[in-house]
Amino acid sequence: MKPRRIKYWGWGYEDDPETPRVLIDNIERYFSKFFRVSGFNTIPLPALDNVKIRAPRVAIPAKLKAFCTDSREERIRHALGRSPIDYVKIFNGEYENPPDMVAYVRNEQDIVDVMDWAVGARAAIIPFGGGTTVNGGIEPRLGDAYAAAVSLDTTLLNKVLEIDDVSRCARIQAGALGPDLEAQLKRSGFSLRHFPQSFQHSTLGGWIATRSGGHFATHYTHIDDFVENMTLITPSGKLETRRMPGDGAGPDPDRLFMGAEGSLGIITEAWVQLQGRIKHRKSIAVFFDDFLKGCEAVRHIAQAGLYPSNLRIIDAEEARVNYVSDKNKHILFLAFESTDHPVDAWMDRALEICADYGGKFDRSIMARPDSHRVEEQGRWRDIFMETSYYREITTPREIIYGTMETSITWDRFPEMYHRINDVTAKAMVEATGRKGSLSCRFVFVYPDGCAPYWSWYCLGKHGALIDQWKHVKKAAIDEMIRLGGSTTHHTSIGRDHMPWLNRQTDDLFRKVLQSAKRTLDPHWLMNPGVIIPPEG
Amino acid sequence: MKPRRIKYWGWGYEDDPETPRVLIDNIERYFSKFFRVSGFNTIPLPALDNVKIRAPRVAIPAKLKAFCTDSREERIRHALGRSPIDYVKIFNGEYENPPDMVAYVRNEQDIVDVMDWAVGARAAIIPFGGGTTVNGGIEPRLGDAYAAAVSLDTTLLNKVLEIDDVSRCARIQAGALGPDLEAQLKRSGFSLRHFPQSFQHSTLGGWIATRSGGHFATHYTHIDDFVENMTLITPSGKLETRRMPGDGAGPDPDRLFMGAEGSLGIITEAWVQLQGRIKHRKSIAVFFDDFLKGCEAVRHIAQAGLYPSNLRIIDAEEARVNYVSDKNKHILFLAFESTDHPVDAWMDRALEICADYGGKFDRSIMARPDSHRVEEQGRWRDIFMETSYYREITTPREIIYGTMETSITWDRFPEMYHRINDVTAKAMVEATGRKGSLSCRFVFVYPDGCAPYWSWYCLGKHGALIDQWKHVKKAAIDEMIRLGGSTTHHTSIGRDHMPWLNRQTDDLFRKVLQSAKRTLDPHWLMNPGVIIPPEG
Repeated sequence: MKPRRIKYWGWGYEDDPETPRVLIDNIERYFSKFFRVSGFNTIPLPALDNVKIRAPRVAIPAKLKAFCTDSREERIRHALGRSPIDYVKIFNGEYENPPDMVAYVRNEQDIVDVMDWAVGARAAIIPFGGGTTVNGGIEPRLGDAYAAAVSLDTTLLNKVLEIDDVSRCARIQAGALGPDLEAQLKRSGFSLRHFPQSFQHSTLGGWIATRSGGHFATHYTHIDDFVENMTLITPSGKLETRRMPGDGAGPDPDRLFMGAEGSLGIITEAWVQLQGRIKHRKSIAVFFDDFLKGCEAVRHIAQAGLYPSNLRIIDAEEARVNYVSDKNKHILFLAFESTDHPVDAWMDRALEICADYGGKFDRSIMARPDSHRVEEQGRWRDIFMETSYYREITTPREIIYGTMETSITWDRFPEMYHRINDVTAKAMVEATGRKGSLSCRFVFVYPDGCAPYWSWYCLGKHGALIDQWKHVKKAAIDEMIRLGGSTTHHTSIGRDHMPWLNRQTDDLFRKVLQSAKRTLDPHWLMNPGVIIPPEG
Repeated sequence: MKPRRIKYWGWGYEDDPETPRVLIDNIERYFSKFFRVSGFNTIPLPALDNVKIRAPRVAIPAKLKAFCTDSREERIRHALGRSPIDYVKIFNGEYENPPDMVAYVRNEQDIVDVMDWAVGARAAIIPFGGGTTVNGGIEPRLGDAYAAAVSLDTTLLNKVLEIDDVSRCARIQAGALGPDLEAQLKRSGFSLRHFPQSFQHSTLGGWIATRSGGHFATHYTHIDDFVENMTLITPSGKLETRRMPGDGAGPDPDRLFMGAEGSLGIITEAWVQLQGRIKHRKSIAVFFDDFLKGCEAVRHIAQAGLYPSNLRIIDAEEARVNYVSDKNKHILFLAFESTDHPVDAWMDRALEICADYGGKFDRSIMARPDSHRVEEQGRWRDIFMETSYYREITTPREIIYGTMETSITWDRFPEMYHRINDVTAKAMVEATGRKGSLSCRFVFVYPDGCAPYWSWYCLGKHGALIDQWKHVKKAAIDEMIRLGGSTTHHTSIGRDHMPWLNRQTDDLFRKVLQSAKRTLDPHWLMNPGVIIPPEG
């Protein structure tokens, strides 16, 4: 049974490819007013039949025929991710680097067979889960170093293989998409409760390979913390780490493969921790006049050991763009949830802290059992997953929708906040000649720091959109790195972030990664260009 | 200013070397009754002057003279750790593998100078923090592969360099001993609150290198989770990771060096998270008739998201041996603490769960502000740190005091518990001809599993103590590995655990570690024999 697939040109499913009408209307209404234009210079999506891609550069060998395809449509579907650049290319019908074949691997032996063949064929292997990368993680941009590229699609490996309801864990194949693995877990009463924004269309293996950040705003939320072990197929052989809860016996092998983004091998399955059914929950929106004052409340709560499930502040512009609120206030979404006990004491204390920092809120909301689904917090909850549709709306209309996120300790956050706002606003004017929309929110919060996320929109020109986007992105990430932040907190490195990863990584550690790659992937087949730069 | 040092032959300080009399009396009383003997065949500690060690095999080169010594006493002090084997050797005056010199490095350049010299001299470099290893981590057992051994003592690098009271972090030199770094932090109102059993005599760098488990029984407690970055000197150069709160940009470099136990370089400093002053605390002992029923209560609490600071169950024999309680009950120590808010709601729910599993407790204890210092929990708190004195009492009396700990998912814990009890009890009889004392407790608890810890005592024979100890240890750890557990949860690998680490580690991952070592330590100078076995 094949899982339900993402449509080739955007978000949502191929069997229901419509873009939600309300989102189109909202974006057109908001940005025609914002940019003071009466309409948008909208280009149509090229029909799939009209898209030109180069012919496959290799023939599928007999041994791989049972599960490989070089169909034009499959190659188009595996050529691009979902970044701003990708959307421009999709709407321009530019598929410069399609893979030469797609391998729908059915088992570990199929992966081994692809790898064995790839050595002689000088073919790069590009792991493909849901294809939702926003940083070029799956596009075979290889230059002349390789004779061919295989997109290795893991989505047939989509079973929950085993559930341990005592330890609350499951052994799950890495190609399982979020909704598919949740559907299989549901029978047992458990959930992984890992809901990154890409949840619908991304896989467990993709989450682990890219160190995805999950549902919770605080505390155990990175997929890293839920992995007990993993199995990988590398070009040098199969590698299986030992299934254990926390331990301290030597360096943790799992931590090397988390974040390697497929450059060291293909994750085929993992034991991961599960959560029980949520029985108690409280959710509320707290309003602040001053964004940084709200951030101070967030810091205080994060350092208080309360561990809310949600502790995300969004600024007033973020609330406006997304039709969450027009009150012109900054909004802190605060929530607690538990499988075990009422969370009133936790929420009461967190709200006391909010009040100390000038936060305003309406407690009566919490009396409602669906408090997380109403008012501002309900609207944010709905739109959070739907913003993934935005780029298929903005791109054909010449609106550039960019994002950046980073990770920074609290002491350096205020400077980071002001500087990134200034640099980004200036770069948008430089790139497009007019002011853009810029907003900031928190995505994850730690006792020692936070992960701020910026969204920006500016009105570009067809033909120049990629360069305009690059200009703003580069200005902002250069500044993030200069100020001590990370290139990314949770959206992966891919190919697009590599220049900055190289700047933030110690040279010697890069050499260690290269030596690890030489050991596991001596012919440098695995996702070349991602995470581990070529030697020499 | 030199930090206060551990006495060369046991626990406690060299300027106050007495073994606490009450511990001697307690052990003699308990075990004369247990083993039905009227006295012990006690041997004296050899006077330091009578200890024979080989002459240094190399002369200190001029460049290192300012900070290196080959004094006999310093070489003796750096020759052995604090394992059962080490204590036998100390009491027998057998220092087979003393280092040829001790380098008291004052700064990073001193470390570089030692490494530069070591290449030509074919000298192994053994990192030395507090010297409290219980697994042979610091003994230069090198065979003929090296011409000399340098013990590189980090304890002059003992400063808190910087405190960031906004992010609640400090930059601390790696050679700072527990009490020294806490004294320096105290001025700012913060604490690292990392209290492994070796706290008094171990260093931050040692904790990080061995992935020490800390104060808390649940939740963030491994030192791993508190490290923001680190700086190392490796033979290939200086390596500094980026200071960040949580992030997901590529594989986390810190996680490779955590657990490497000095085999890849010398950690010189780290930014670590701090905790505020504890303002609220509740502590209680819960009594169970059935140990495994008590463990079920622990599992339920661990899976409830309550995150107690203490959640450690000890069995009735553990309580008896340590004079904590003679009620013949299994005791769960349950505590909550907070820098921010009263913890009543948390404790109330945890006690409800305990009651559901048949736990009995006296709530009135909690009305006392010093509830953690009274009754069973007070006695356990005191003895927990003092058990480190036991081996200097048991060893000369022919009592073998062994311990093992592991990490295992909940589903496999009951089998592990029964099997390790059976195997260890049988092995003690095989080794010594009579029944030994055996007890079990939990040291750390996770939602998906636990870290059980066994203590055992049997009456051996001088001259055979090491072989007798090895027989029991091998039987137990063989069984732990067979049942899917880890060689260690938190007491390090050292040289003694290497056979089992090799069995639990995937061959390919071992090759990755070897390739990392070739990159950072091409002449294989750093702590040879630990973590990373020789190639080929």
